[in-house]
Amino acid sequence: MSEPCFDVAHLGHVEMLTDKPEETLDFFVNVYGLTESGRDDTSIYLRAWDDYEFHTLKLTASDTTGLGHVAYRASSQAALERRVAVIESMGCGIGWVDGDLGHGRAYRFKSPDGHVFELYYDTKRYEAPEGEKPALKNIAQRYHGRGVAVRRLDHLNLLAADVSAIRDFMVQALGSRVTEMIQLNNGRIGGCWFTVNNKGYDVAFTEEHANAHARFHHVTYAVDQREDVLRAADIFLEHGVFIETGPHKHAIQGTFFLYVYEPAGNRVEVANAGARLILAPDWEPVVWTEEERKKGQAWGLKTIESFHTHGTPPIGETIIE
Amino acid sequence: MSEPCFDVAHLGHVEMLTDKPEETLDFFVNVYGLTESGRDDTSIYLRAWDDYEFHTLKLTASDTTGLGHVAYRASSQAALERRVAVIESMGCGIGWVDGDLGHGRAYRFKSPDGHVFELYYDTKRYEAPEGEKPALKNIAQRYHGRGVAVRRLDHLNLLAADVSAIRDFMVQALGSRVTEMIQLNNGRIGGCWFTVNNKGYDVAFTEEHANAHARFHHVTYAVDQREDVLRAADIFLEHGVFIETGPHKHAIQGTFFLYVYEPAGNRVEVANAGARLILAPDWEPVVWTEEERKKGQAWGLKTIESFHTHGTPPIGETIIE
Amino acid sequence: MSEPCFDVAHLGHVEMLTDKPEETLDFFVNVYGLTESGRDDTSIYLRAWDDYEFHTLKLTASDTTGLGHVAYRASSQAALERRVAVIESMGCGIGWVDGDLGHGRAYRFKSPDGHVFELYYDTKRYEAPEGEKPALKNIAQRYHGRGVAVRRLDHLNLLAADVSAIRDFMVQALGSRVTEMIQLNNGRIGGCWFTVNNKGYDVAFTEEHANAHARFHHVTYAVDQREDVLRAADIFLEHGVFIETGPHKHAIQGTFFLYVYEPAGNRVEVANAGARLILAPDWEPVVWTEEERKKGQAWGLKTIESFHTHGTPPIGETIIE
Amino acid sequence: MSEPCFDVAHLGHVEMLTDKPEETLDFFVNVYGLTESGRDDTSIYLRAWDDYEFHTLKLTASDTTGLGHVAYRASSQAALERRVAVIESMGCGIGWVDGDLGHGRAYRFKSPDGHVFELYYDTKRYEAPEGEKPALKNIAQRYHGRGVAVRRLDHLNLLAADVSAIRDFMVQALGSRVTEMIQLNNGRIGGCWFTVNNKGYDVAFTEEHANAHARFHHVTYAVDQREDVLRAADIFLEHGVFIETGPHKHAIQGTFFLYVYEPAGNRVEVANAGARLILAPDWEPVVWTEEERKKGQAWGLKTIESFHTHGTPPIGETIIE
Repeated sequence: MSEPCFDVAHLGHVEMLTDKPEETLDFFVNVYGLTESGRDDTSIYLRAWDDYEFHTLKLTASDTTGLGHVAYRASSQAALERRVAVIESMGCGIGWVDGDLGHGRAYRFKSPDGHVFELYYDTKRYEAPEGEKPALKNIAQRYHGRGVAVRRLDHLNLLAADVSAIRDFMVQALGSRVTEMIQLNNGRIGGCWFTVNNKGYDVAFTEEHANAHARFHHVTYAVDQREDVLRAADIFLEHGVFIETGPHKHAIQGTFFLYVYEPAGNRVEVANAGARLILAPDWEPVVWTEEERKKGQAWGLKTIESFHTHGTPPIGETIIE
Repeated sequence: MSEPCFDVAHLGHVEMLTDKPEETLDFFVNVYGLTESGRDDTSIYLRAWDDYEFHTLKLTASDTTGLGHVAYRASSQAALERRVAVIESMGCGIGWVDGDLGHGRAYRFKSPDGHVFELYYDTKRYEAPEGEKPALKNIAQRYHGRGVAVRRLDHLNLLAADVSAIRDFMVQALGSRVTEMIQLNNGRIGGCWFTVNNKGYDVAFTEEHANAHARFHHVTYAVDQREDVLRAADIFLEHGVFIETGPHKHAIQGTFFLYVYEPAGNRVEVANAGARLILAPDWEPVVWTEEERKKGQAWGLKTIESFHTHGTPPIGETIIE
Repeated sequence: MSEPCFDVAHLGHVEMLTDKPEETLDFFVNVYGLTESGRDDTSIYLRAWDDYEFHTLKLTASDTTGLGHVAYRASSQAALERRVAVIESMGCGIGWVDGDLGHGRAYRFKSPDGHVFELYYDTKRYEAPEGEKPALKNIAQRYHGRGVAVRRLDHLNLLAADVSAIRDFMVQALGSRVTEMIQLNNGRIGGCWFTVNNKGYDVAFTEEHANAHARFHHVTYAVDQREDVLRAADIFLEHGVFIETGPHKHAIQGTFFLYVYEPAGNRVEVANAGARLILAPDWEPVVWTEEERKKGQAWGLKTIESFHTHGTPPIGETIIE
Repeated sequence: MSEPCFDVAHLGHVEMLTDKPEETLDFFVNVYGLTESGRDDTSIYLRAWDDYEFHTLKLTASDTTGLGHVAYRASSQAALERRVAVIESMGCGIGWVDGDLGHGRAYRFKSPDGHVFELYYDTKRYEAPEGEKPALKNIAQRYHGRGVAVRRLDHLNLLAADVSAIRDFMVQALGSRVTEMIQLNNGRIGGCWFTVNNKGYDVAFTEEHANAHARFHHVTYAVDQREDVLRAADIFLEHGVFIETGPHKHAIQGTFFLYVYEPAGNRVEVANAGARLILAPDWEPVVWTEEERKKGQAWGLKTIESFHTHGTPPIGETIIE
């Protein structure tokens, strides 16, 4: 029996496209509580107060919304090379890029649904400038308490026409493990939650119901306590941010969640996982049936209809490749 | 540069000695909120509601208190064998044992201070009996809400005369990483926090100030929220359990903590780490100076004197080897 | 201008009818976390751990469900007499009763919709027996932590065909103040929240949409923290209790809520009001329009349909007088 | 037997003196989270987001620190006049003043220790300007989430040489009720907690151990949840605010507390009382013995020494009358 793969350390960052760059930036900085680390011609680099890298969110001005790319950091230079060799053999590689303000050389490749992935090891650590140095030196930046003040990047969710194909891809390409999944009555996989480390998930893929590809469902940052999620709801309410659903507890993964749309329409989540970790190296995926999913979320909240339909870019603008 | 080691998956269980086995059991079941999985001639096996294994705490009746042994689970059978080869080459091995009710064959070895460690891969998963099956199948046992109702084993803390020697031992033997440490002015390491995975720490060693060896400082289970720690304080208060210090937030690791003594005198903690994880594969240890530690805990609480002196077994009873 | 009335001190207790007395009792004691104080031929008297009186919930076995009566405690004997004189002059009085296990002489009267009210001053204080004495003597009973472990009676909600008539009745009979209300486009009052003290409300009346009278909507106990409401949701889930809606935050009054049905079908709430109090002696009622109410609850949750229809007793069994 | 008195509705505001007016203002606005309503020649008027009046804190520039005056709002104009008649007959009246930016005509009088009290009925309600209007109209101002973002004024604590005399004064002058008190072995009252409404206390007096009079111990605003107190601790830490003690739970009143010093040295508290209310109209004071108080706070934290000595103004500057 093969050993678990530890070549990929963690989700690194997400590039989000926005056609309302100023409003989106204002949302992420003043309402969601991220901090800008830098900017270049097309993008602004943001991070949460305890993200150790230069950025975890790259906001790129665009004529549409959705995902630019998603990046994972490898466990070492050697691990990066091992993964690239595998990915190239899978035939889904794009090739090396030089990196950007936040990290060095990175290898790009595509999911079966067309999402652009990136794998890198060389990174730029965040160095807190004066005024942002924390009182306790084991956090990356002082707790500024601005807006929701999320702590760190947690995960993202992407839409794909064929989640089964995605499952094979994630397991092979990144060495991800499936922690939970939805098995539909028609034999297809309705959703699949993956992790490369001890978190319950760093990416989820759920079935795309539109005739579209490579769409984005949401990105999530973690807060320390469920109370922070409740407080976030009041902050969103007072700022006129559209709250789609929550706060409530997911049946799958048990995460306490709250979903909103940032001004350009990308869905953004605030979440808390409690003390949950996937520690078992031989964790068996939890498989949910269609019937079980009909019970709704953990405490009975019906899954909101738009959760099954709203992705970015919106349908008319989706890039069909 | 070498790659990080992933051979050890997680802290598996702690064997605690007690000379008041009935009172200790009552505390852990009815106040702390663990559940009994089984018992044999000398021991009772306990676990928290989301521990996936048969047990995480083995209570063993003894004529004293303190640590029986501490066990880690390897990432795979091959990883176990790699670790055993290293440990044997280090000269600190004891040898293979057959395991107990909770797991299969295990390799025993000793820390430089004499603490007994165990490494195993074959384990017995907890299967919830009728009446303990959870409403949501991604947790190990239903949330019973009994007493403090801790969620899962988190870490332990051991005392050692020479923490520097322990550091070398942990890094070599288990492939642990040092996440934080205290550098004393006299050149010694006052305390060292280790992890084998994404948790901030699974074991801490702090300096033994008595003429004793292999002593135990405390074991900790995690709860989901800081509010659970505050609620635990009321439960301990109403049950007449001795509260040593807390609730407060540690400067080191940022954990929200509460320390009590179980009836036989072993120190037990309830803790919440918020959303903190060590995701960087190349995390640099955070080094605290003696002066920084004099500031006390995160919000200024002075570290209580007994925290530096109380270990189990008590001094007169310590096994000097 | 007249002065505010302080003749009535607080909501005292609610008598709930149940046609499944054993299951209902098990729910209130083991899941909701009340404690039995005593029982007589037809009823069992229950209270929460910080209720100062002998009982705040009287469970009465019946061939149906719903409200037996609701009782308020007067501020003094003289205040009781003043109120009774007013009530008698209003023509809605029933007369004096001797009281029950929990209190002395009480005056009974009826709301315009037929709900039986009771006003009393002589009461029986709870004296904690050995084993229930608290560690800190400023709470009525030890914090036992059993089930949801609600702290104290908070309020109840009743249905009435003509809420405007109820408003006049409550203001006149009890000297209640209206803190918030719903003004329907058809000119009727859709709901009205009343208080006799600094709480935001001790009773709410909402419009009855069925051809029925004197029905009960729900009774609510308070917990100390919103986290206790979230924890309650897990406890209800694990006990198979039907969760109707929540946890979420009410737009009206801002209360954090969770609604369930006890086994006989009566609706029961767990709630937390945060630090909200009505301190202004000349508080002006907050008036919500029908349009404003269409926005749903505070963070956008749509008010569940059954909230407008489910009352007890169920329609077929409603006593039409 | 006399009836309880309801002539005084609630604590209205506290005037605090500061010899560092700019730093003190910055603390209260940007760290503590109050909002300025207005200013005149010597003072700045502040309030928390759910205080319904124009101000609850009046910061007055001075050559020292401590209490300017404390004001209570009467239940009605008639109640105000009744109280003034009583106070004048007690011989501790000062006389009528015209009020300030926040309220109309007020009657001034002195405590036996020399603290200046004020009683008023005519008040100025806060009208939220554009940009501060709440999303839900039952709160006074939008939840801005700035700094600690306290919700409303809760209570204050004053020092007095003779707490027994204060007890008589408060009961007579304001009709306050004693909810809890400390009975010292020497026969004196060590501390006394008073309320005019359903809150556990709106003012506490504790014994002055210095040769001084009319000193101020602390003022407290309430937050909705204990988690808000924990979050406040991080905010204070990051802003370099001196944290004196806490967070912890008081044995007396059960309040969850955190004490800091604002830049000029006045002690300020953040607190949460959970769902505790004093509903009984005939509440018997809880009397704590000296021995009981030696146990420290609720969960065993020893009361910090400075809590018994630090008041404002500091001793050398105390106005001896």
